[in-house]
Amino acid sequence: MSVYLQDIPLPQAQARLQQALQDADLWRVLGIESIPLDENALGRVTAEPIWAKISSPHYHASAMDGFAIRAVATNGAVPSRPVTLQVGPEAAYVDTGDPLPDWANAIIPIENVESLDEVGHVTTEIRTPHSIRIRAAVAPWSHVRPLGEDIVATQLVIPAGHILRPVDLGAIAAAGHEQISVARKPRVAILPTGTELVPLGSNLKAGDILEYNSLVLAAQIKSMGGEPTRCPIIKDDFNLICDRVQEAAHESDLILLNAGSSAGAEDFSAKVVEQLGQLLVHGVAVRPGHPVILGLVKRTSDEEINPRKSLVPIIGVPGYPVSAALTVDIFVEPLLAQWLGRRPNELQSETATLTRKIVSPPGDDDYVRAAVGKVGEKLLAAPLSRGAGVITSLVQADGLVLIPRGIQGKEAGEQVKVHLYRSKAEIEGTIFCIGSHDLTLDLMSQFLAEHGRRLVSANVGSQGGLIALRRGEAHLAGSHLLNPETGEYNISYIRQYMPNIPVKVIALVGREQGLLVQQGNPKGIQSLEDLTKPQVQFVNRQRGAGTRVLLDYHLNLSSIRPERIVGYSQEEYTHLGVAAAVASGRVDCGLGIAAAAQALDLDFIPLFQERYDLVIPKQFVKSDLLAALFDLLGERDFREAVSQMRGYDVSMMGTVILED
Amino acid sequence: MSVYLQDIPLPQAQARLQQALQDADLWRVLGIESIPLDENALGRVTAEPIWAKISSPHYHASAMDGFAIRAVATNGAVPSRPVTLQVGPEAAYVDTGDPLPDWANAIIPIENVESLDEVGHVTTEIRTPHSIRIRAAVAPWSHVRPLGEDIVATQLVIPAGHILRPVDLGAIAAAGHEQISVARKPRVAILPTGTELVPLGSNLKAGDILEYNSLVLAAQIKSMGGEPTRCPIIKDDFNLICDRVQEAAHESDLILLNAGSSAGAEDFSAKVVEQLGQLLVHGVAVRPGHPVILGLVKRTSDEEINPRKSLVPIIGVPGYPVSAALTVDIFVEPLLAQWLGRRPNELQSETATLTRKIVSPPGDDDYVRAAVGKVGEKLLAAPLSRGAGVITSLVQADGLVLIPRGIQGKEAGEQVKVHLYRSKAEIEGTIFCIGSHDLTLDLMSQFLAEHGRRLVSANVGSQGGLIALRRGEAHLAGSHLLNPETGEYNISYIRQYMPNIPVKVIALVGREQGLLVQQGNPKGIQSLEDLTKPQVQFVNRQRGAGTRVLLDYHLNLSSIRPERIVGYSQEEYTHLGVAAAVASGRVDCGLGIAAAAQALDLDFIPLFQERYDLVIPKQFVKSDLLAALFDLLGERDFREAVSQMRGYDVSMMGTVILED
Repeated sequence: MSVYLQDIPLPQAQARLQQALQDADLWRVLGIESIPLDENALGRVTAEPIWAKISSPHYHASAMDGFAIRAVATNGAVPSRPVTLQVGPEAAYVDTGDPLPDWANAIIPIENVESLDEVGHVTTEIRTPHSIRIRAAVAPWSHVRPLGEDIVATQLVIPAGHILRPVDLGAIAAAGHEQISVARKPRVAILPTGTELVPLGSNLKAGDILEYNSLVLAAQIKSMGGEPTRCPIIKDDFNLICDRVQEAAHESDLILLNAGSSAGAEDFSAKVVEQLGQLLVHGVAVRPGHPVILGLVKRTSDEEINPRKSLVPIIGVPGYPVSAALTVDIFVEPLLAQWLGRRPNELQSETATLTRKIVSPPGDDDYVRAAVGKVGEKLLAAPLSRGAGVITSLVQADGLVLIPRGIQGKEAGEQVKVHLYRSKAEIEGTIFCIGSHDLTLDLMSQFLAEHGRRLVSANVGSQGGLIALRRGEAHLAGSHLLNPETGEYNISYIRQYMPNIPVKVIALVGREQGLLVQQGNPKGIQSLEDLTKPQVQFVNRQRGAGTRVLLDYHLNLSSIRPERIVGYSQEEYTHLGVAAAVASGRVDCGLGIAAAAQALDLDFIPLFQERYDLVIPKQFVKSDLLAALFDLLGERDFREAVSQMRGYDVSMMGTVILED
Repeated sequence: MSVYLQDIPLPQAQARLQQALQDADLWRVLGIESIPLDENALGRVTAEPIWAKISSPHYHASAMDGFAIRAVATNGAVPSRPVTLQVGPEAAYVDTGDPLPDWANAIIPIENVESLDEVGHVTTEIRTPHSIRIRAAVAPWSHVRPLGEDIVATQLVIPAGHILRPVDLGAIAAAGHEQISVARKPRVAILPTGTELVPLGSNLKAGDILEYNSLVLAAQIKSMGGEPTRCPIIKDDFNLICDRVQEAAHESDLILLNAGSSAGAEDFSAKVVEQLGQLLVHGVAVRPGHPVILGLVKRTSDEEINPRKSLVPIIGVPGYPVSAALTVDIFVEPLLAQWLGRRPNELQSETATLTRKIVSPPGDDDYVRAAVGKVGEKLLAAPLSRGAGVITSLVQADGLVLIPRGIQGKEAGEQVKVHLYRSKAEIEGTIFCIGSHDLTLDLMSQFLAEHGRRLVSANVGSQGGLIALRRGEAHLAGSHLLNPETGEYNISYIRQYMPNIPVKVIALVGREQGLLVQQGNPKGIQSLEDLTKPQVQFVNRQRGAGTRVLLDYHLNLSSIRPERIVGYSQEEYTHLGVAAAVASGRVDCGLGIAAAAQALDLDFIPLFQERYDLVIPKQFVKSDLLAALFDLLGERDFREAVSQMRGYDVSMMGTVILED
C-alpha cells in the first residue's frame, strides 16, 4: 500500500529548514559582488552600508545665475537708496553651479540687479557690466548651496540590505562611488520530473501534461531576485533523477525538484533526497501544497562554487500548479530574502467580509484565493476555485485569505484578513459583477481594462446573483430569468429576491439558446422531444440557472416530463461546462448558448431566443466606478465585437427595462 | 537681460503634450512584438487579449492515484456490505493526471480500496490486483478533474494591457501558447548636457558637477518598462546639441535632454527644440522642476525606425536631481504607460498629519518630500529638505505631499494627503526618532535595518525633539541637554517641555565635545579663551541645540562673554554642518563632536565629555516596534561599532537614567 505523508505544521517545517541551514552556515548572504553603478544595479540588494566618500556639493555652489557678493556690502540697500557694487573686486558673475569665490558669501540673482556701464547707465551686458545696482539687502549664504548640503563625506547614504531604486543610484553616485557591493544572486535550479510531462508546443494526446510549472517557478525566482535555471524534463526514473540532482547541486545554491513529492508509486523525490543527503521534512500541513519535501543534498565534486559549502538545500515542490507556486512563496521567498540580505516580501493585508462559506481542514493552514472588491463601504472577499490544478484561480486572485490551523472554516459574512496582491487603488477601481455568466462579460472585461477599470465576474447563476445583490455583495448582476407564467424576463424575480431595493435594469444582449451537440450531430437531435430518446444522454444546468428555467418552461409548454430525459439531474455550472461535457463525449447534448458551441467546435441546434439583462442597484447607478461600463454599452467597437459572436443580437443593448 | 519662463499650470502642459502626440498619432501603443513565453516575459505588457487555444485539462484527468470505476457500480456499498469490482472490466488503476477511461466516470483513491487476489484475499499488489473491494459509495465525477476545469478553449485568459506576473505565464502556457504579443519597449535617449558636467570617477575640482542624472533617469525609464540609452556628456554648444538630438531622434521614441532647460545664458534646450521642431511648453508651474520643456523634433533621415512616424517627442528635463526625477515621474511615466498600453502607475495615498508648517508658492503644484511614520494611532508626515539639489531627500522620502496650486501652504497639525513610496507595512515598521543628531543614530539605523526595522531620524535639536515628543510626533528623541545650574543632563528639560508625560530615559553614549579646527590647527586654537581672538572666526550651533547649551555653560564658567566671539551668532544645524564650515575654510572653528571632525579630516581639540540619552515616552516603551532597538543596546557588535568612532564611550549604553 501507499506510504502516507506525515504532515507537520508549517512553522515547524520552516524552523527545521532554518535550523539545518544555520547548521550548514547557509542562513545568511551567500556572497558579495562588486558591480558597476549603472541602471542594471536596479533591484539589486546592497551587501554593505554605503558611506559617502565625498560631500555633495563638494564646494560652496551658486544656486542661481547671478552675482557673487559679500552680504555685508548690501546692508541698508532699499529701493530708494540702492547700493552699487563694482564688478571685479565687489561682485563676480556666476552661473548656477559655479563655485562661490573665496571672498564672497552670498549670491544675488541676476533678475534682482541692474547692470550699469562706466558712466552709471543701465546696460544689457549680463556677465561683465562695469557695476551692479542692488535695491535690497541680501542675507549671508542666500542662494548658495553650501558644501555638504546634500551629502556630507562619511555619512550613511544607503544601509545594507536595501533594494536599489533609481534615486538611490543617484545618491550613491553623488557620494563618490562608481561601483557597489551587492549580494550575489542565488542560483536556483528547477528540475521538472514526470514521464507524463511534455514541453510547450507539443501535440497533446490524452494523459500528456504540459510542463509549465518550471516557467512559473523560474519567473517567481527571477522576480524575487534569484537567478533561475530551467532544466529539461526528466522521466520518472530514480537513477536519472539522482544524476540530474547531483549535477544541479554543483552549479546551484538551491534545487527545486518539481513533482514526485507525494507518496505515490512513481513519486521518487523523497527517496532521491534521502539517497543524496538528508530528508528534513516530508509533508507540511498547508493547503494547497501539503506534499512538500525539504532537505539537503551533498555536493560531491571538487569544482564547488564555494568550497566552504558542501550542502545544497533541495525543495520537493508539489506538482499541481497552484501548490507549486504557493510552495515557492512560502518556503523559497524567505530563503532568498536571507541569501540576499533583504527583508522578506510582505503582502499588504486588509480586513474583508467573506461572501461565501469556506470549509477548511482543521489541521492545515489553508490558503484560499479570493477576488476582492469594494462594494459600497464594504471590502468583500469572494473565494475562488479551491482546485490546486486551477492556475487561473491564482491569475484572478486579488489576494489570499489564510484560514489558520485549528479553524474548521469561516461563515459567509464573517470578517477575514486578506493578504492583497493588488494595491488598494486597483481594488477600489474594480467592478464586481455576479450572477449568470455570459461571454459578453469576458469581452466587457477586456474593453473596460482598456479604460483602466477591472471587471471581476463571479458565476453563481441568475438567482444567486440577485441574492448576492440583496446582500450588498456586488455592483451588478447578469440575469436571464424567464417568468414561466408571463414570459417576461427578470422583473418578477428581482421583486421576489430583492424586495425594497430600487434597481435599474438594462438589456445587455439577446441571445440564442439551443442544443449543443457533437460535430455532425451523430444522434440526430433536432428538438426538445428528441431529448427523451433513451440513447440520448443529456446534461443539465444547475438549479436556479436561467437556462434551466428556460428549459423547464419549454418542457412544460411541450408537456415533456423531465424524468423522461436521461441526465436531467446531472448539473453543470456554466455554458462552457456544458459544452466541454459534450465535446468530451461524456454526454450527447445540453442546452446552452451558440457562443459556447462555437468555442468548442460543436454543432448548435437553435431553439429559443432569450434576453440577458444587467441588474444594478440604484445606489451604484451614478457611481464613477460604473460610468465606464455604461459608456461601453453605447460604444460601436464593443457592439461590433459582441455581434461577431454567433447567436448574439445587440439591437437592445443599453435599453432601460426598468428604473425604480 | 534674461528671458523669463512662462510657467503654465500642470494639467494644461500635460494636455498640450497629449494633444500634440494625438495629432502625430503617437498617443497609443507604439508597436507589437511576439516574444517567446519564458521568464523574460515577466513585466512585459500584453498587446492583445490572450484567448485560450486549448482547454486545461484537455481531457478528463484523474485527480488522485486510484482506480477508475463507474460510480453506479458502487451504489449501496457500506462498511458491512462492501462491493467488489473486478480489475479490468470494472476498475482500472490510474496515476494522478492519467486520463479517465471512456467507460469510467469516477476515481476511487487508492487509500479507499482493498486489493484482493484471485481467491479474495487482501494483497499488497497496487496496480493490478485481481479485484478491489470498496466500502463506501462513490459519487459520479468524484476525484476527476473534468476537461476544462481550469481553462476552456476560447475563454479570455489575460486581457490586453496586463503586466505579466509569474502565474500569468503559467496560465498562458496552459492555454496552449508558446509566444506572446507584447508592446514593444519604448526607446528613450537620455542626453546630458553641460560644460560643467564630469563623468563618475573624475577627479573633482570646484565647479565640476558629477553627471549622475542620466543614471537616475535611465533607471527610472527601465523600471517603467522602457529601454533607456545614456549618451555621453555634451558640452554647452548649440550646434553640437542640435547634432546629438538629431542623431538620437533617428533611434528613439523619446528624447530626454537634461539641463539647459531654464532661461540662462547657456540654456540652449528651448532653442534647440525650436530649431529642430516645435516648442510646445517652456515652463510648468510645478515645484521642484518648473523649467520643463515639452516639444517635438523632426526625424530627417530615411532610416526611420517606423516610417509613419516623423516626429519624436522631446522633454527638456531640469538639471537639479530632484527636479529631474520628478519631471520623469510626472511627464514620462504616463507617456510610457500609453505607449505600453498599461495603466499609469499610481502611488497609494493616505491621510497624514503634518508635523511642520509648509509654505508653498500659491501658483504652483508643490511636491514636498516627507518621511512618513505611524506614532501611536497617528500617521505623520514630516517634511524633508525642500532643496531641488538634495537627492538624499528623495532617497529618504517615504512619500510625497502635494500642495496644489491655489494653496499657500499647510499648517503643522493639518491633515494632508500623502502619496506613499512604501507599503503601509513598511511604514508601520518605522521607528520615528527626532531631536539632536548623533552619528550613533546612523549606525543604529544600519543595525536595525538588518533586523527588519527602519529608523528614520529627523534632526531638530534636543529641545525640538522633546517638544515633538510632547506633540506625539515621534517614538523617541535623542537629547544631550545640560542643566547649567546642576550639571545634570536632560531630566529638568524633560519635566519642563514634556510635563505630565511619563518617560523612560536611557543613556546611549558618552561623547567628547571639542573644537573642530582645520588640519594642523593653523590658528593655534587650544581653549575656549582662544575663541575671543579677533582673527578667529567661529561658527555656532542653533539656539536650543545641546552643544550650544554646553558652550554657554562653559563660557559662563570661564566668564567669557559671547559678544567677544566673532561668529557666535552664525548658526549651523548639525555637527557635520559645523565640520563642513570649517573644512571649507569659511570659519576657523566650531564646537562639535570628534566623529564629525574625523568625518571631514579635521583636527579636534577635546574640551568636555557629555552624555547623549534616548528619551522614550512610556506608551512606546513596551511596543513591539521598539523591542529591536532595546535589544540593539545590549548587542556586542553594535557597541563595538560605536566605540570604533573616535570620542565615543559606550560604557553607559543602555543604563536607565529615569523611568517614570
